[in-house]
Amino acid sequence: MTTKRRHREVIPEDEVRVFSGIQPTGIPHLGNYLGVIKLWVKLQEQYQDVMYSVVDLHAITVRQDPKELRENIYKMVACLLACGIDPEKSVLFLQSQVRQHAELCWILSCITTNARLGLLPQWKEKSNTKSPSEKSSTKSPSVGLYTYPILQAADILLYKSTHIPIGEDQRQHLDLCEDLAISFNNKFGKVFRVPQVLFSNTARIKSLRFPENKMSKSDQSSKGRIDLTDSNDDIVSKIKSAVTDFTSHISHDKENRPGVTNLIDIHAACTGETPQDICETYSSLTTAEYKMLLADIVINEIQPIRERILWLLSDKSHLQNVLYQGQEVASVIAEDTLKDVKKLIGFI
Amino acid sequence: MTTKRRHREVIPEDEVRVFSGIQPTGIPHLGNYLGVIKLWVKLQEQYQDVMYSVVDLHAITVRQDPKELRENIYKMVACLLACGIDPEKSVLFLQSQVRQHAELCWILSCITTNARLGLLPQWKEKSNTKSPSEKSSTKSPSVGLYTYPILQAADILLYKSTHIPIGEDQRQHLDLCEDLAISFNNKFGKVFRVPQVLFSNTARIKSLRFPENKMSKSDQSSKGRIDLTDSNDDIVSKIKSAVTDFTSHISHDKENRPGVTNLIDIHAACTGETPQDICETYSSLTTAEYKMLLADIVINEIQPIRERILWLLSDKSHLQNVLYQGQEVASVIAEDTLKDVKKLIGFI
Repeated sequence: MTTKRRHREVIPEDEVRVFSGIQPTGIPHLGNYLGVIKLWVKLQEQYQDVMYSVVDLHAITVRQDPKELRENIYKMVACLLACGIDPEKSVLFLQSQVRQHAELCWILSCITTNARLGLLPQWKEKSNTKSPSEKSSTKSPSVGLYTYPILQAADILLYKSTHIPIGEDQRQHLDLCEDLAISFNNKFGKVFRVPQVLFSNTARIKSLRFPENKMSKSDQSSKGRIDLTDSNDDIVSKIKSAVTDFTSHISHDKENRPGVTNLIDIHAACTGETPQDICETYSSLTTAEYKMLLADIVINEIQPIRERILWLLSDKSHLQNVLYQGQEVASVIAEDTLKDVKKLIGFI
Repeated sequence: MTTKRRHREVIPEDEVRVFSGIQPTGIPHLGNYLGVIKLWVKLQEQYQDVMYSVVDLHAITVRQDPKELRENIYKMVACLLACGIDPEKSVLFLQSQVRQHAELCWILSCITTNARLGLLPQWKEKSNTKSPSEKSSTKSPSVGLYTYPILQAADILLYKSTHIPIGEDQRQHLDLCEDLAISFNNKFGKVFRVPQVLFSNTARIKSLRFPENKMSKSDQSSKGRIDLTDSNDDIVSKIKSAVTDFTSHISHDKENRPGVTNLIDIHAACTGETPQDICETYSSLTTAEYKMLLADIVINEIQPIRERILWLLSDKSHLQNVLYQGQEVASVIAEDTLKDVKKLIGFI
């Protein structure tokens, strides 16, 4: 894990506050788990002050079925807990339950120019898309889809967060966040920390069917992904039928053997071994034999999580209670910041 | 006063809720008072359920000096009270103190398309302006200036307001608000009232220096307007030097005699007489004599208000307290609506 410091401020360990958000997309798949959630668990062990938010205000920037959204919120919270997010170590909360996010978003939208916002790549992509497979909601994109990078900035700045684990595709959004923090501090007085990116070299797991694409919920075939609630039989069957090639031993070669390489990456992300070590250790196995080995490893990783998820989902009042406690802590920090902001801009 | 009903719902008298907002621009001038604030006082007598908001979240869509903004908020509240807004009869509150405005604004921004918002005329005007006299803030307009009609809709819908007194220039913004109410109700379930416009035939007071323009705070010459805190001497001097013409008697003729007509309109708005009655009653006076008469009438109207303003401004904790009480009432209504909204869209 490397920290890229655009601004030279060196932040002492005891001042670090990690913030990250995840959309309530329902049950995460193996790609979400190995790429993001495992990192969250690791950061929670590494740092004293960690805040994680299920960002439902972001979810509604595209059309959602209300019943499904509510279920998906519960599912995401249950999965985070099942994967090891510990409310004693992290503040885990639901974005819409901390009112200050929307308030700060409005205030920041008044110091963001339209010109600046229109430059962001995600907006261009999502709004110009002509693909018929795209959801209709993105064909006539909502204002929320346009302005959500401002809400993202508010999410981060509200907690004076110092370290933000993000993927490379979010880089320009964090640039906006940094710009807004600096611009506000200069115009009105220092209140925000300028956050720093925490780049991680976590696994980018690919589809089991189309190993050139990311593992994704929107994959045409559910065979392309393993969900955290998949049964052991499903896991075996999906890994067995994973697209590989006609070479019968394993090797790590993204370019020429994306399918097998993806399987090795999954293996490495589960056990913490390096792909090189794995290739050496299992050099005698055929691809088919290796798949069976990997299935066992994935089951070993997923089965206890699945059991915890199902158990957690059976008690929604417990999940509500976890969110309520997170909201209580988050609100106090958020209100502290927002009070300063309001005072500085001239509100009463 | 006429009510234009776009939608055929007839609202029983006891279900009427009037909502209106005013920007904290500091001490209002005679045009604000006779055009808006007097109407507010009248509506407060006419209806049981009336809510007035000093909309500071709107004020920051253009750059504000924080100290000045804070003073301007106090000044506007003091002036509203001094003009007769009675917290026992109206709920008077500061927009930023009721968090639900920003929250509902975000939610509505997710059901508003960019295409729809970009059509609104005020945005086009403000963002395309090339005039060098325009504030620099509007040359590179903020996202807030673009999206504020959504906040305006949230202001209104949050209280399930039924009647909105607006000027003709706000018509298209209320159209958006109506569309959003209907669209939300159809998509998620009925929660919002579809508000109706309350058109008023209140006076549109013009500048004393340039009677073809509205009386305005941004007038180059402060001689063009009478502020509610102007001294009696100032009032006399400003009315004496008001631009009229070379005809020495008074007549009401907007086209050909805009200056004198404006004076008669001020007179009519102060006393409630019709312009015709005024012209008949004072047909024997020269314009100069009429100006002296009008100065007395305006002083008669303004002096007690001025005294109350100065007295009220000397006790800011009283003003804070008034706002606090308004916020308490407004928040309960707002939260009631927002709870329903959040439930309907699938939040927890």
